[in-house]
Amino acid sequence: MSDTQDTALLRLAELRRGIDVLDAQLIGILGQRFGLTAEVGKLKKEHSLPPQDPAREAQQMARIAELATGAGLDPALAQRVFRAIIDTVVQNHKQV
Amino acid sequence: MSDTQDTALLRLAELRRGIDVLDAQLIGILGQRFGLTAEVGKLKKEHSLPPQDPAREAQQMARIAELATGAGLDPALAQRVFRAIIDTVVQNHKQV
Repeated sequence: MSDTQDTALLRLAELRRGIDVLDAQLIGILGQRFGLTAEVGKLKKEHSLPPQDPAREAQQMARIAELATGAGLDPALAQRVFRAIIDTVVQNHKQV
Repeated sequence: MSDTQDTALLRLAELRRGIDVLDAQLIGILGQRFGLTAEVGKLKKEHSLPPQDPAREAQQMARIAELATGAGLDPALAQRVFRAIIDTVVQNHKQV
């Protein structure tokens, strides 16, 4: 293996450590987020509100695209990730 | 609308503000994460490494499940969200 290849693999390992640190932060925030959405689900059930709220979701998705653009993140990528988060939450609310 | 219903709607609005704050944090971290994965993609391309790395992915998914459990988050939920993140990243690497 060449020196350049060695350097590349070291840099790759370094980048991956950085990604792992961010993933731990993401998990921490997701944990807090699912805590709040579980409370939302409970509240909706107690007050016979529908588990899904298309107006709120549309508002969230628009805000996410806006925040993503501000963070230099492709809005479509951000929306795809949040689609997975929101779908998981809605599924959970239906199961409550 | 009853008082209880009013109180519930106020609480719902409060919970949603909390969710919006966490979403802004998630977007910020996702922005940093996609910055690092874009660098990984560039490095892989320059050194003719394959865009997808099943061993690394399996390791990430196992770690995510472990971190999720530690954060009181359902590991399956966390993995579903990260599946979306990783798939988006892999798609991007292939397009680079």
